[in-house]
Amino acid sequence: MLITPGKLLEKINSPADMKGLSQAELVQLCDELRHFIIDNVSVYGGHFGASLGVVELTVAIHHVFNAPYDQVVWDVGHQAYGHKILTGRRDVFHTNRVYKGISGFPKRKESEYDTFGVGHSSTSVSAALGMAVASKYQGLHDKQHIAIIGDGALTGGMAFEGLNHAGVSESNILIILNDNCMSIDPNVGALKDYLTDITTSHTYNKLKDEVWNLLGKLSTFGKSAQEIVSKIENGIKGTLLSQSNLFESLNLRYFGPVDGHDVDHLVAVLKDLKDIKGPKILHCVTVKGKGYGPAETGNATTWHAPGTFDKITGEIHKKTYEKPQPPKYQDVFGHTLVELAKQNEKIIGITPAMPSGSSLNIMMKEMPDRAFDVGIAEQHAVTFSAGLATQGLVPFCNIYSSFMQRAYDQVVHDVCIQNLPVNFCLDRAGFAGADGPTHHGAYDIAYFRCLPNMIVASPMNEEELRNLMFTAQLPRQEQAISIRYPRGQGVMPNWRTPFQKVEIGTGRMIKDGQELAILTLGHIGNYAVTACEQLLAQGIDVAHFDMRFVKPLDEALLHQIFSRFKKVITVEDGCIQGGFGSAILEFMADHHYVAEVRRLGIPDRIVEHGEQLELHRECNFDPEAIRHTVAEMLEPVGKHA
Amino acid sequence: MLITPGKLLEKINSPADMKGLSQAELVQLCDELRHFIIDNVSVYGGHFGASLGVVELTVAIHHVFNAPYDQVVWDVGHQAYGHKILTGRRDVFHTNRVYKGISGFPKRKESEYDTFGVGHSSTSVSAALGMAVASKYQGLHDKQHIAIIGDGALTGGMAFEGLNHAGVSESNILIILNDNCMSIDPNVGALKDYLTDITTSHTYNKLKDEVWNLLGKLSTFGKSAQEIVSKIENGIKGTLLSQSNLFESLNLRYFGPVDGHDVDHLVAVLKDLKDIKGPKILHCVTVKGKGYGPAETGNATTWHAPGTFDKITGEIHKKTYEKPQPPKYQDVFGHTLVELAKQNEKIIGITPAMPSGSSLNIMMKEMPDRAFDVGIAEQHAVTFSAGLATQGLVPFCNIYSSFMQRAYDQVVHDVCIQNLPVNFCLDRAGFAGADGPTHHGAYDIAYFRCLPNMIVASPMNEEELRNLMFTAQLPRQEQAISIRYPRGQGVMPNWRTPFQKVEIGTGRMIKDGQELAILTLGHIGNYAVTACEQLLAQGIDVAHFDMRFVKPLDEALLHQIFSRFKKVITVEDGCIQGGFGSAILEFMADHHYVAEVRRLGIPDRIVEHGEQLELHRECNFDPEAIRHTVAEMLEPVGKHA
Repeated sequence: MLITPGKLLEKINSPADMKGLSQAELVQLCDELRHFIIDNVSVYGGHFGASLGVVELTVAIHHVFNAPYDQVVWDVGHQAYGHKILTGRRDVFHTNRVYKGISGFPKRKESEYDTFGVGHSSTSVSAALGMAVASKYQGLHDKQHIAIIGDGALTGGMAFEGLNHAGVSESNILIILNDNCMSIDPNVGALKDYLTDITTSHTYNKLKDEVWNLLGKLSTFGKSAQEIVSKIENGIKGTLLSQSNLFESLNLRYFGPVDGHDVDHLVAVLKDLKDIKGPKILHCVTVKGKGYGPAETGNATTWHAPGTFDKITGEIHKKTYEKPQPPKYQDVFGHTLVELAKQNEKIIGITPAMPSGSSLNIMMKEMPDRAFDVGIAEQHAVTFSAGLATQGLVPFCNIYSSFMQRAYDQVVHDVCIQNLPVNFCLDRAGFAGADGPTHHGAYDIAYFRCLPNMIVASPMNEEELRNLMFTAQLPRQEQAISIRYPRGQGVMPNWRTPFQKVEIGTGRMIKDGQELAILTLGHIGNYAVTACEQLLAQGIDVAHFDMRFVKPLDEALLHQIFSRFKKVITVEDGCIQGGFGSAILEFMADHHYVAEVRRLGIPDRIVEHGEQLELHRECNFDPEAIRHTVAEMLEPVGKHA
Repeated sequence: MLITPGKLLEKINSPADMKGLSQAELVQLCDELRHFIIDNVSVYGGHFGASLGVVELTVAIHHVFNAPYDQVVWDVGHQAYGHKILTGRRDVFHTNRVYKGISGFPKRKESEYDTFGVGHSSTSVSAALGMAVASKYQGLHDKQHIAIIGDGALTGGMAFEGLNHAGVSESNILIILNDNCMSIDPNVGALKDYLTDITTSHTYNKLKDEVWNLLGKLSTFGKSAQEIVSKIENGIKGTLLSQSNLFESLNLRYFGPVDGHDVDHLVAVLKDLKDIKGPKILHCVTVKGKGYGPAETGNATTWHAPGTFDKITGEIHKKTYEKPQPPKYQDVFGHTLVELAKQNEKIIGITPAMPSGSSLNIMMKEMPDRAFDVGIAEQHAVTFSAGLATQGLVPFCNIYSSFMQRAYDQVVHDVCIQNLPVNFCLDRAGFAGADGPTHHGAYDIAYFRCLPNMIVASPMNEEELRNLMFTAQLPRQEQAISIRYPRGQGVMPNWRTPFQKVEIGTGRMIKDGQELAILTLGHIGNYAVTACEQLLAQGIDVAHFDMRFVKPLDEALLHQIFSRFKKVITVEDGCIQGGFGSAILEFMADHHYVAEVRRLGIPDRIVEHGEQLELHRECNFDPEAIRHTVAEMLEPVGKHA
C-alpha cells in the first residue's frame, strides 16, 4: 500500500522547497506531514509518538535554517521521521526500518542532511558542539549548529558534559530542548521535576518582568524607598537572577518555554535566535503523539513504537496465533524477577529508563520500593547497583547489551575491580533487528569476558534464563554475572518451569554425534538444533553442546569434546573477534588441542538493520548456514553415516 | 626513615578515638595530620595537594560521623590519605603506593572504612546513593551516607546522573562538594565558572537574607507598599528562589559555601546536617595544597603528585643522570603533535582534564585555539572529536587507556558505526604502576579490536610512535585509529626522528632466528629484545617480530611466521583474554595453522599496584619470564645451537 502525501508535501523534495512557504502553508505542511507519518506508521510500523511531537519543530527548523550547510543533529533520532520525509526521503519512507530500506534513525551514509548518526541518547550536544567549534576554527561564522534533545536524553550524563563545555565554548550552538516529560517511558528524576516547575509555574522570564515592575512601583514611595529598591535590584541581579536558571547557571542563554506546536511562533523565535551568537538553549514544550488522538491521550509508552494499527479506530494490531506462543525473553525476565524477589527480600531491580523495554515495569508495579527506574543513566545504574551490593542487597541491573557499552567503565571500576556480586541482565544481546547497528548487541561477549571477576552466561531458552537468574540470586560474596539474551521470543510456550541451580561454568550436551561438534552459546543454539535435525535427516549425525557460559568455560566438557572431535564449529550471536569462539581457541591453545575450528557469528563490519533472521542469514549463521558449514567441513571425507 | 606522628595523632587508631576531642584538640589534630602527610609524601612520594586540601574536612567528618557504620565515599580517592591515617593505617602509611603496600586510593579489601574503591572520578554520588537507598530499604534510618566530590569530578557526566536520581530519592545522602577550582589541572567549563560565581559574589543564602530584610523595610512604607512587597515575595519565593541554585534546581538542599579549612565551623555544620533528612549538598571551599606554602602558592598541577621533595625548601627532587635519558612517551606525543599540527592545519588536540598528564599542555600553550581540555568528560571528548571529524578536521583525542573505558559507547556508537577517522592516543596502556588496578590500562586491546572500523596499533619505541602519529594524520576518509603506549619512558634518547609513513597493518621483523618466534605488540617488545639477547648469549637463537598492529593483523607476515615456526610466544601488556595473543590464535584457526602458542600478558585477575617491572615480573612477562618460557618450550628437544 503506497501512502500518498498531501499536495504541499508532495512538492517538498528538500528544505530548499520550504523557504518560500507562507505562514498558512507552513501550517498546512505540518498537517500533511503529520498525516503522512500517521499513514505510514499505521501501515508499516515504526516509532511514532516522538516524530508526531516534533512535526512543527521539524518544519520550522527546515524553513528557517539552511541545511545541509547548517548542521542539524537529532538526539536519539527516532523523532526524525519528519526530517527524513522533508529531506528527500519521502518516496522511500515506506522502506523505513525494513531490511535494505532506509534506517529508522538519522544516518550519515543515507543523506547529507543526516549530519550525525544517532540511536543512543544524549550525544547531540557533544556532536553539534564539535561541529560548531570546527566551523568557528574554519571561519564559517554564519554556520548554524542545532542539537534537538529531549528532556529524557538530557538526564544522560554525557549531555551534561556537553553543556558544561558548550557554556564556555563561545561557539554557535543552539540547543533545542524538546520537553515532553517522556523518554520511552515517563521521564524520571530531579531534572524532570525542575523542567515541569519552569513550565507550569510562572515562567522565569515573565516572573522576572513582574518583579521588576513591582519594584518600580515601590520606587514611587520616595527617595529612601528608591535606595532600598535599588539595593534589592542589585542583589537580585547580581546573584539570584544570574543563577536563577539551571541552564543560565551553565552559561547558556535560556529562551522559553515556548509552545512546540505553534509553528508560526517557532519560526519567529528561531529566526531571532539565528542572530544571537554563542551557546543558547530554547525550551520547547511538546506533546508526544501530538495530533493523533489515541497517542495523545492514551499510554505514551504504548504509542512510542506501537507496531501497525488501524488509524481510524486507533486499535493496535495484534497477531493472533492458534497455538500458544513462547514468551518474549524480556517478559521471562520481568516475571521471574518478581517470583524470585518474593522469595528473596534482598533482590532489587534497576533499569536505566527501560522499564517497559526490559519488563522491569512488572516489578515496579508489584514492588515499587524495590525496583528503580533511574532515568537514561546507564553509568549511574551500574554504580548505584554496586553501592546496593556493598550493603548486602542483590541487585539485578537490566541494561540492553548495546547500552551497557555506556557503563563499561563502571562495570570495570566499580564492580569487577571490587569483585562485587552484581547481577547484570543484558537484553537485546545479538542483533536488535529493525533498530539496526546502534542497537545491535554485538560486542558484550568480547568486552565482558576480558574482565576479571565477571561470569558471562547466556541461556538457550526460557528455562535456562530462569535457572540462571535463580542461580544469580543465591547467596554469594563475589563475582559479577552477566546474563545475555536476545530481543524477542524464546522457544517454550510453557516456560514457568521450577527453578534449578545451574553450576557456574557448566555447559550441557544437547545432542551427541559423530566426527564434528557444534558449540553454541545462548538462544542461537536453537538454530543448531534445527540444523542438527535437518542434517540427521540427511544422515549426518553431529554433536551439539550448549556451552551456556563463556566464562568460566566448562573445561571438563571441553576436554571431552576436544579429545573426541577434530572438527568443531562455534556459533554465537556476537562479534567473532574476541568472542565465544575465540575463548574456545584460547582453551585449545592452553591445552594443546589441535582441531579444525570454524567460528560463526557477527563479522567484523557494521551490520545494518533488518529482521533478526535476515541478518543471521546475511552473516552466515542461520540454520542453513550452520548446516552448510557442517557439510563443507565434512566434505573431504565424503558422506557420513 | 620512619615518620613520627604528633602526640595526638599517635593516639588515634580509629575514628572512635576522635569522638571526645575538644575544639582545640581537633585543631591540633589537623595540624599534626597535615604534618604527617607532608613528612610522608616528601620522603616517599604520592599524591599531595588534594589530601592537604581536605585535612580539616577529614577530621571533621570522622569526628562527627560514625564510620564505619556511617558510609563515607571519597570521590577519586587520592585525597583520602588523611582518612587512611585516621582509620588505622597510620603505621603502614609509609608503604603507600609501594608494591605489596597499601593502596593510594580507598579500597574495600584494605579496610572496612573504605566503603567503596575509587580511582576514576565522579562515581561517589552513585555509590553513596546506592548505599543510602539500601539503608532506607533495610530500615536503617539513622545511617549516614556521605559522598565527598571535587568540583572537577562534578563535571563528569555520571555525577550529574547521580544527582538527578539523588534529588528524587528521599534518601539520606550528604554530598560534600570539595571546591578547589582544580582537578589535576585547573578545572574548566561552565560549572566551574558557576561555582566561582557563587563563592566570590554575595553568597546565595546571605543575599537571600538581605533581600528579605530590605523587603521587610519597604513594608514600613504603608499598606499599599506592603501589598506590593507581599507580591514580590511570593514571586521570588515561588520561582526565582526555588530555581535560584543549580543544586536546588535538582532538588538537593544546598548549604554553604563554607570555609573548608575552619574545622570548628565544619564540625558545627556537619552536626546540623546530620539531623536534616533527605538529599543535601554542602559546598566547601578549600585550597589544594593547603598548609604547605610551596604547594599553596606554587603550581597546583606540579604539587598534585610531586614525587619526593625537600620539605624545608620545597625543592622537588629530580633524578640526575649521567647519560641522556629517553623521553616519556607522553612527551613524545605532546611534542610530536605540535610538530604535525604546524604542518597540518586540520589537526586538533583534545584531552578530558589531562593536559599535563598527556602532555597536550604543550599544544595548548603553543596553539590555544587548536587544543581543548574539555574537563573530566571522556564521553564528551570522544563525541566532540567525532563532531570535529565530520567537518573534515583531524582530531587527536588523548585519553588514558583505563579512562577510555568510560567513553566506550561513544567510540562504538559515534565513531566506529559512523566509520569516522578519529585518532585516539591511549596513554597509560598496560600497567599504570603505583596507581594500581583502577588505572591499569589492561583491557583496551580486547575492547577495541572487537570493533569494526577500528585500527589498533602500538609503537615499540618513540620513533614508531611518531611514525604512527604521522600516519594517522595523513588524509583518510574513514576508520578510527587507536595508538596505545605505556606510562613512562621509551628507549630512544635521540627520539626526534624524521617522519615516515607506516603501512597500516604491517609488522616488522626485529630479529630472525630458529625454531621459535616471539610476537610482541608495543613497548613491551623491548623486553623480548632483552630476552633474545640473553638467549643468544646462551646459544639460543629465536626470532622476534614486532607486530605493531593488532588490527588489522599483518597477515602476510603471519603466513611467513606460521609457515616457518611451530612454536610461538605472544607477549602483550594487556589482558590475555581476548587480546593480542587471542587475535593470533584466530588467524591460525582461520588459516588452519597448527603451532604451540604460549600467550604472555596480564592474567585474568585484578593485579594490584607496584612498579611496572615488579608487576610484569609478577605476571610472568618480564624479560626473564620470556626467556624462561622460550627455554621451557624448547626443552623437550634439548639445547639448541
